[in-house]
Order: sequence, then C-alpha cells, then structure tokens
Amino acid sequence: MLSFESDYIEGAHPKILARLVETNLEKLTGYGEDIYSQRAKEKIREACNCPQARICFLMGGTQTNKIVTATMLAPYEGVIAAETGHINTHEAGAIEAAGHKVLTLPQHQGKIDAKELAHLLEQFFLDENHEHMVFPGMVYISHPTEYGTLYSREELFALSALCGKYRIPLYMDGARLGYALAAVGDVPSLPEIAAACDVFYIGGTKAGALCGEALVFSKNNMPAHFMTRIKQHGALLAKGRLLGIQFDTLFTDGFYMEICRHADAMAARLKDAFREKGYAFFLETPTNQQFILLENDCYEMLKTKVAFGFWERTDDHHVVIRAATSWATTREDLEALRRIL
Amino acid sequence: MLSFESDYIEGAHPKILARLVETNLEKLTGYGEDIYSQRAKEKIREACNCPQARICFLMGGTQTNKIVTATMLAPYEGVIAAETGHINTHEAGAIEAAGHKVLTLPQHQGKIDAKELAHLLEQFFLDENHEHMVFPGMVYISHPTEYGTLYSREELFALSALCGKYRIPLYMDGARLGYALAAVGDVPSLPEIAAACDVFYIGGTKAGALCGEALVFSKNNMPAHFMTRIKQHGALLAKGRLLGIQFDTLFTDGFYMEICRHADAMAARLKDAFREKGYAFFLETPTNQQFILLENDCYEMLKTKVAFGFWERTDDHHVVIRAATSWATTREDLEALRRIL
Amino acid sequence: MLSFESDYIEGAHPKILARLVETNLEKLTGYGEDIYSQRAKEKIREACNCPQARICFLMGGTQTNKIVTATMLAPYEGVIAAETGHINTHEAGAIEAAGHKVLTLPQHQGKIDAKELAHLLEQFFLDENHEHMVFPGMVYISHPTEYGTLYSREELFALSALCGKYRIPLYMDGARLGYALAAVGDVPSLPEIAAACDVFYIGGTKAGALCGEALVFSKNNMPAHFMTRIKQHGALLAKGRLLGIQFDTLFTDGFYMEICRHADAMAARLKDAFREKGYAFFLETPTNQQFILLENDCYEMLKTKVAFGFWERTDDHHVVIRAATSWATTREDLEALRRIL
Amino acid sequence: MLSFESDYIEGAHPKILARLVETNLEKLTGYGEDIYSQRAKEKIREACNCPQARICFLMGGTQTNKIVTATMLAPYEGVIAAETGHINTHEAGAIEAAGHKVLTLPQHQGKIDAKELAHLLEQFFLDENHEHMVFPGMVYISHPTEYGTLYSREELFALSALCGKYRIPLYMDGARLGYALAAVGDVPSLPEIAAACDVFYIGGTKAGALCGEALVFSKNNMPAHFMTRIKQHGALLAKGRLLGIQFDTLFTDGFYMEICRHADAMAARLKDAFREKGYAFFLETPTNQQFILLENDCYEMLKTKVAFGFWERTDDHHVVIRAATSWATTREDLEALRRIL
Repeated sequence: MLSFESDYIEGAHPKILARLVETNLEKLTGYGEDIYSQRAKEKIREACNCPQARICFLMGGTQTNKIVTATMLAPYEGVIAAETGHINTHEAGAIEAAGHKVLTLPQHQGKIDAKELAHLLEQFFLDENHEHMVFPGMVYISHPTEYGTLYSREELFALSALCGKYRIPLYMDGARLGYALAAVGDVPSLPEIAAACDVFYIGGTKAGALCGEALVFSKNNMPAHFMTRIKQHGALLAKGRLLGIQFDTLFTDGFYMEICRHADAMAARLKDAFREKGYAFFLETPTNQQFILLENDCYEMLKTKVAFGFWERTDDHHVVIRAATSWATTREDLEALRRIL
Repeated sequence: MLSFESDYIEGAHPKILARLVETNLEKLTGYGEDIYSQRAKEKIREACNCPQARICFLMGGTQTNKIVTATMLAPYEGVIAAETGHINTHEAGAIEAAGHKVLTLPQHQGKIDAKELAHLLEQFFLDENHEHMVFPGMVYISHPTEYGTLYSREELFALSALCGKYRIPLYMDGARLGYALAAVGDVPSLPEIAAACDVFYIGGTKAGALCGEALVFSKNNMPAHFMTRIKQHGALLAKGRLLGIQFDTLFTDGFYMEICRHADAMAARLKDAFREKGYAFFLETPTNQQFILLENDCYEMLKTKVAFGFWERTDDHHVVIRAATSWATTREDLEALRRIL
Repeated sequence: MLSFESDYIEGAHPKILARLVETNLEKLTGYGEDIYSQRAKEKIREACNCPQARICFLMGGTQTNKIVTATMLAPYEGVIAAETGHINTHEAGAIEAAGHKVLTLPQHQGKIDAKELAHLLEQFFLDENHEHMVFPGMVYISHPTEYGTLYSREELFALSALCGKYRIPLYMDGARLGYALAAVGDVPSLPEIAAACDVFYIGGTKAGALCGEALVFSKNNMPAHFMTRIKQHGALLAKGRLLGIQFDTLFTDGFYMEICRHADAMAARLKDAFREKGYAFFLETPTNQQFILLENDCYEMLKTKVAFGFWERTDDHHVVIRAATSWATTREDLEALRRIL
Repeated sequence: MLSFESDYIEGAHPKILARLVETNLEKLTGYGEDIYSQRAKEKIREACNCPQARICFLMGGTQTNKIVTATMLAPYEGVIAAETGHINTHEAGAIEAAGHKVLTLPQHQGKIDAKELAHLLEQFFLDENHEHMVFPGMVYISHPTEYGTLYSREELFALSALCGKYRIPLYMDGARLGYALAAVGDVPSLPEIAAACDVFYIGGTKAGALCGEALVFSKNNMPAHFMTRIKQHGALLAKGRLLGIQFDTLFTDGFYMEICRHADAMAARLKDAFREKGYAFFLETPTNQQFILLENDCYEMLKTKVAFGFWERTDDHHVVIRAATSWATTREDLEALRRIL
C-alpha cells in the first residue's frame, strides 16, 4: 500500500547498504576506532566548518538525548524544553530515569520562545529560595521540531546568546536535521548550527541510514571519558564500523544533503497535492513532515488506500494526520496520492 | 523580633522534649524496633481507625516523598501532581533523581481538579502510542496544599474514586496535616483520609516535633522489605527512638490535635488583625498559613518590625507574604502584631 | 595482516547482508513489530522448544545485561556473578549505574561453583541482620564464559535447582552462545538452556551478525511493559527490522549452528597448530577462544606477523594471548598461522 | 538487663539534651543556617586546625556515605574499600543505588593495605582496556574500622600519599571517630586526619549525640551547590538546629573527647575483665568495641544475663560477640559484668 506513514519504513538508502557490503570483509578495530568512523568524523567536521569538533556515533535519538543530558548536566540541573519536546513526551521518561527533570516552556508550533526562556532564567536566579529548586542547566531544542517547523537564523542565535549569558549549553536534537538543512528559506546552515549550539546531533536513522546518529560537540566540550559513559549506558557498539561506514557514505560528496533535498522536494509536491484538492492544513512546514486536518469520514476513507501517521484528534469531528516523505519517496508515489485524493 | 516566618522556627513543643529527657537512659533496640515506636504506631492506627495500617517514621517531607515515589512506582511510571506541588517545585528534583517524572496538572489554589485528572488518565490510555510515554502511576496531593488550602470531603473522595478506577495509589503529603484536621468546616477526618488515600504522611516537623513524619500505608500495601529500602535511601535512624518517642507523645491524649487547633485559632486571629486594618489577602485559608498582599513600601516598612515569609512578587508594585502560626504562637504575639499593623 | 584478534573484526556473514539488501525496500512497521522480527521470534521459540518464550532483540551485550538486571531485580536486590563475570569487570559499571550491586563469587576457569553459590545464599538468609544487606536477587553466568569454558549439563542444572529453591532467576549471558551449542562434548542444548534458565540471550554480534542479541524469557516472565523499559533505556530501534532480519536469517535452516560449528572446528585446528609446535596453553577450551601462554620475546616477535588479543601478563616473563576464530576464519588462515608458528 | 550490645542503645548524653531544652524557644533560621550550626562549624574547624574546612551536618552514617560518594565521584568512577567496609556490606546497596561500584580490596583486621592499594591503582591505569572498566575514583576507609581497629599515623599518611599521587580523594568514615581520637597509642590526631584526608566525618550518633554526623571537607573541596544535593537526597533538615546545637555542645570545652575517653577507658576495663577470666579474644582493639570468642554453651549462658552484639559464627562450636562501651557505661556496669563472668 502507498505509505507516507513515516520516514523510517524502508531500510537504508541502497548506496549505504552497498558500502556495508563492499567493506564487509575488511578487518577493522572495534568500538568506533575504525578507519571509516575516523573518516566520517573528519568529513563531518569539515561540513560543520568546525575543526575542533569532537564527534561520536550512537544508535538512536532517545539514546543520544539520554546520554547528552546525563553527561552534560550536573546532578542538580534539569533541561529546559518545549512542553512538546520529544524528551518531554515520547521518550518514556528516559531523561528522568537518568535523574534529571525536564523544565518546560510553552511551545509555539513546537518551538520555544527566546523571551520566555529569558524570563524563566531570570526568575530562577532571582528566587532567593532557589537552592531548593532544580537548576536550569541546558536548553534542548529540536530542529526540525516535532511539528516539522524550523528555527530561523535569528531565533537560533537569540537562544544561543541567552545560553551563553547564563553559561548553559544549547543542545539541538537533529533527528531530522538534514530536512532542515535542505529546506528553502532563511534557515541556519550546518556551520551556523555548529556555531550556535554547544552540542547537537545529525540524524541518520530518519534520513537514509539503517540506524545511527552523529553527535557533535562543537565547543571542545566532550565530557571526560565519554567512551566509558557510552559503554555504561549500554550504547557502545562492538562493531562501530556499522555507524562509521554509514556516516562516511552520507558525508561523502554531499550525499546527505542530496537525500534530504529530495525528500523536502517531495514534501512540497505532497503539499501541492493536498492544497489543490482543497484540504486544510493543521500545519504546513518547510520540511519533510506535513500535518493535514481531516474530517473523520474523510480520514476513514483515506486510510483504506494510503497509510499516514495518526497525529491527534482535535475535536469530535476532526483528526490530524502526519504525512512524511523520505529518500524513498518517488514522483510515482505522489502521482498515486494525487489520484487517490 | 516578632516572627510569623514559618512554623518551624522554634524547636519542639516542650512536652516532647520532656519525654525525650525522661526516657533518655532507657536502653532501647535500634532502627525503629523500640517500644515507643511500636506504641506510637498503635496509637496512630487507632487515630486512623485503620487496624491494618503499616506505619514507619522518617525524618522529613522530601525524604518521605522521595521514598514513597521510589518504592510505590514502577520504573516506567511517573507521579501526577499540581504544577505547584512541593515535589514539582521545591524538592531540588528529588523525585527525578529517583528516576521518576512528575506529570503536572494545573493548580487551583494549590489543588488539582478531579475532572482534569480524569481527562489526563483517559487521554493517556487512549493514546495508541503510550508505550513511548511515561505511565501515570500515582496521584500526589498536598493537604493542606502549599497555599494552605484544603480538599473538601467530596473533592478528596472524587480523587480517590478515580485512582481506584485506574488502580493507581492516591498519596497525600501531610507535612502540615494536623492544621487540616483541626480546621473548621467540612474537612476530611483522619479515618476518612486513611480510607480515601492509599498512603499518606502525618507531618511532625512542622507541627510540634523536633523532626519526623509518620508515613502510613493504609491498604496493607507497604512495599516489600521497606526497611531495606529506607536504609538504601540513607534514611534509617540508628536511634529510631528519636522519632518513636515524639510521635508517641503527639498521639497520646489528642495532643497533636490540641497543638494544631491552637495554631489554627491563632491564624484566625491573625487574619482578623489584618482584615480589620484593611489589608488585602492574596489567599485566606482555614489553616495556619495566610497569604497577604502588600504594596512594596508597606512591605519594606513592615519587615523591619516583624518577620514573615516572602512568597512572591505579583507585579512591580506588590508582593505576597506568608504568615504562619504554630504551637509556639501566643496571644501576646498577636497583640503585638495588631499594634504594629 | 593475519588476525585472530577477536570474533568481531569483520562485518556480518555475507548471507545476512544479502538478506538486508533483498528486503530493503519493503515498507515495514517500526519498533520491532515488523514481520521479520515476528518470524525470527517464532523460529527461536522452536529452536528452544519453548512455545511460551517471550523474545526481544537488543543491540549489544552490555545493553542486554543492563536491561535484564534493571528490569528483573527489585531495587533492594543485587546480582550474583563470578568475580571475572563481564558485568563485574568490563561493562564500565553499567549494572551499578542502574542501581544494583554485583555480588561476587570466586571464579573457576570463569565459572561459578554450585556449592559456593549454595553457601552464599544460605549465609545470607541466616544472617539476622540481612535487612541491612543487598539481597541476592539473580544469578548471572556467562556461557561460554569470558575464558571460553562451558558449564556441563550437570553444572547448569545444579545452578538452576538452587535458583529455583530460592526463587531467584538464573540468567545466562550468551554473547557467544552459538560456540557453546556447537561445541563437542556433554554440553547443554538450546532447549536444555531454555529449561534451566529463566532468561538468557543468544548472541548475534559475536556470532555472525552485524549487531544484535536475542533476549529470551523462557518462563512466561517478561517484565511488564518491557517495550517501554527498552525505550527508557534508549535501546529501542526505530528500524527494528535491522535486528529481526538478521535473526530470521540466523535461525533459518540451522544457519546459526552452521556458522558456529565452523568457528569451533577452526579453533580446534588452531589448538592443534599451537600444540604441535610445543606452545603452552593457559587454557584450552571447547569453543572459539583459546588462551596461549607466551614468553615475552616470543610474544613480541609473533605480534609483528599475526594479531591476537592481549589477555594478561602472568609474571614478568610471560603473557597470555587470546586467539579467536569466527565464521570468517578460513583453512588458509590456519595454514598461514602454522607457517608462522 | 546489663547491656554492651552497642553504643547507641541510650538516647543522648544528658548535657546535649539539656542544651536542646535551653535553646528550644529561640527563633532560629532553618536548613542549617542557624547560629548554633555556625558556631559548631567554627569550633570543628578549630579542633581540626583547618580554617578553610567546609562543614555540614547530616543525620546518619549511610546517608553521609551515600552523599559523599554521589557528589564526589564522577559517574564513571567507583569507590575503593575493604571487602568488610560498611559501604560494601551493611548499607543495603546505598552506594550502588546512587550509581557507583564499590571496588574491593582485601581486609586486614578491617583495614586496607597501602601496597595492595598501590597495586590496584597501577594495574588499572596500565590496562589498555580500562575505558571499559570502572575508574577508581575515591578511597574509603573507616577509622575505627568495623572491627574497632585503627590506622597508625604512618598507615594513614601512606594511603594519603597514594591518593595524592593519583589525584583521588581519601575519605574517612568516622562513625566512631571519637573513640579513635581518644585511644592510647600512636594514633592520628584530628588535625592530622584533616591533613591526610580530603573528606571525613566525625560521628555523633554513636558517640553521645541523639543523631547526626559532621561532614568535613578539608581541602576547599565541597561539591558545588552542596545544599541542593543534600535536599535532593532527602537529607536536608528544616530544623537544622537539631544538629547544630548537638555538635556545638560536643565541641565546646573538649566534651567530645571527654565522652570518648571515658568509653575507651571503660572498654579497657572490659578487656581486663574478660582477660582475667581466661576468655579468648577474636580481636582486641584500642577503641570502644571488643570482640570475644565464645564456645556455644558459654554464649548461650552468658546471653541470658548480659546483652552483647552477635558478630559471627566462626565454626560449629564457636561464636564471636561484640561488646561496646559508650558515655553511658559505668564502673558499676563493669563490676556487674565481672561478677557474671
């Protein structure tokens, strides 16, 4: 069945699998010390224009979010996030299980607002009683957000300046970062992100890889004995090559951007298809995820022919669905969708 | 200086100290197995009209809240609380440090609303994706709340019924429970609280004791090897007599109620004093804490003559102060206050 | 360079990669709910002769050990292991980071002794003061052990009986289980292991897979909401297919046994090669790892021509090396080794 | 009944209770900011001859040990201790519950040996694979040990030098420190302990106080936001005066030493009484705890007349008992014992 259910319903981009096959019999050092992991890191440092960046590869987003908060926060600190931030809603309490509170701010299409952040930080440090409270120790943003939206350059640097003022790191969850980088408009580039954020990850799982995320510490700030911490979290791969080879492939000759640009372009066509047929959007985004508002009947009919992600029920009569594109989405898929609509 | 700063600025009620002195040379078993701890438990069971209750004594409120959540929640569960709940705001992240998320509901003068709780629980179990979310595993209420307000019988039993429906425990933080029990009006009695809640504690530290809280499991539901858990949390006293003797004294001949009734009566006089002089209340309560709204100038002048707790700044021109009474508050104190006002 | 450094220096067996390529474009449900994961589980249940087994796939050994102890132990319990057990020595404190103590027993060629286990359990429950101690809550064994040795049927069932007597689970770390199952001699079969153990894992990473371990709960004892726990540990893969397809391949037509039998046979030849040349063994094993004792000079010379794992220094003049074979070891490799020796 | 069961069977020394009564109605700031806590700290700094020491008061030994390890160890570090160290045996896994491994060394009458410590540290840092291991991050000693024995000056400074060499803190659990300071012989003084150790605590609970331990950071090394950490552990007292007044009393005019000198002198008489009657010692110590070896029959008879602590069963025919003296032990008690023996 035609499916726009998510951007991780297929395996990996075939080029990535091909590289795994080609290199399969090479005898490589384990635990991420192999030559492909080294090369991938070098290429990412270049793409970030950040020669001092320290990088490591992890398996998935929640794992990365958990390890970042566990290693960068002091035990008396929490992490600030939008109330809709993935770490606050859909990670099964992984952050709290590591001992840290998520301090929430209101969300605006999935984003936090610099003024509201400034207010929270000021209030905290004004409170005479704050030794009894959780210290704000990091700011978490997702980009694209859980709603597919993006921070503008200005918004990102405003958050960055605030974090700098209070000496707390700005962390970007880039599970779908490629779709942000490839988006049309006034969007931060990878070097700008490396400059604005203290730590961020470049998503592989949801952008062409079989699995894996590239975690980047851009300010010479990788926590001490980070490999031991990864091991302690149960996240160190014996065959680190699995991640190194994938990211080496993604960051060779602009391949990551190519994949994501394709997906964003397919998403633009998808928007057009819905718009032409008069569908209402819950949220139009510049990235690979679109949110469409459907009447119940329409939803029931549509889902017999094409798979979408169910997002939420807005009232008794309407639902919101999420349509996602990826490297695997074809023009034919979109033609088929157009016909169904 | 005259002070209504809090209900824990003095030591213990002299009668309690006297008992510590009288029993001091008796050779007693350690770790809470002494005869006074046994007697205190028996008297509390009687006061709760709950013969099957299992009781233990701990040192303070945060310690009790942490141990209750750590031992009664499954690792994938969080605890529901008002956004102003003490565990959410002023316990330095103790709950999260034990691995659990605080799931917040709006506060209404410090209380949660049964309808909003029902909605949260329904939504959670409807969400198809809830395996990625934190399970609601307990409901936390404070009574009196952090604002000195009380749940009515009806409100309490509505929450209790909801918890029963979803098979999650209702936990009452009774740091100042005595002031609630002694309050005038339609307020739940101790046996009613024992019936409505699965677990609750009767506060000593802020109601006449030097230290200590009596934690009551009223449904034959004390977690297995609870003493070992207390030890593991660093909360087991070698000289458990310190807590046993205090609670034995408090629960002999209605002494706990006597102390708290006095404090509530003093608070009523304090309210009168402010009201007569035309002061505005931020919140009038039936218990020993009152919240008064002051203009900045007035606040600055007043605080040179009498100590209050600073509560919050409502706008550029006003502050809220908290005035608390206790067993140690005298009629003379209130006369002095009246003169100052 | 010729290498017997470990059993995870290559990628995956080519047949496994081929299956990943073949299935790559199929659109599959995420988070382990795909058809290949289902099939793999069914095949493993059959191989274990254990229709009620509940199975899930995880990424690596430390992750699996951590999740098993975290989910199966009560907070007041620790896990018993040989002092050389992997969880006690080389997992960076992952078990303690999850809150649990490793209670050690002496090791005998990597194994624990049933009599010593019985003694530990008896002593614990006799101690009147045991409420202040860590409760023994699980027995951990590795099979093959970290020294490549195996438990006999009798030894395994003796441990199993003890665990049954004290109602604590027996957990087998099977990082290299295939090499045990394929070994010649009186060794427990997979159905016997499923009968003797409460939980165990079948290692993929070190036995032909790119990554992945199959965790088996054989007594209808998978912890509640296990998927949520995996997510909370940061161990839930979006593309669960990666693990499902690999284990489906490994458990089709006896392929896992075929790979491991080959490796064990290669190890037998390797032993012969060393023995013929008069080398001394630190430990001869029936599995794919062999431990050879070398004089320093000999070690320095040898390591310029063939890679081994450095195991330990026994005195100022000798070292122990570990030689490991795998699916990728060829007869030609062994001929080459023989020539070098 | 005559009892030498432990040094915490009575309440507090009457002088301490008297001070609690005298100061009871003073209105004091909470959370340890009161004037008595300040004074007690000043007096302890003087007694330690360590003007830069930072001090705080906690309730009990396990709580103190847990907070020290939790705040001074990095997450990838464990604490080295004798296998008989209290943190390794009788704290219900409190250290592991805080995420840290206890790395054990053999015990020699309860003490660790500097050579064995040196070996452990050297081996660890030599191991090429140590990123997969728990880093030794602190050395824990108890003084007196769990066996009542003491480190000599030389032994203590040897451990201190090793810790200095590897830049890890030396931590002394001084649950019964007073009895060590008051002992006859070549024993470290309090200023020497403050010089040798990075952190230590001066026990109150088992040396005359109702409860409480004074934790001393002697190297300007109190962890950041320590009060918040204490709160997070559930260990912050609202009425901090309870601890401040007790330690102020203990450290006024040498009272702590006076109490402990008395107890040690009583223990010397107790030794004499047993020795004269021909009893065998399991361990004779210079402090307030003595360990006597008894035949079963003798033990059964004796325990009907005088209470001792049961220590262990050495074989089928013998048990070891512990006899402890304290401030409350009188010459009459010892006469009574002599008669019974």
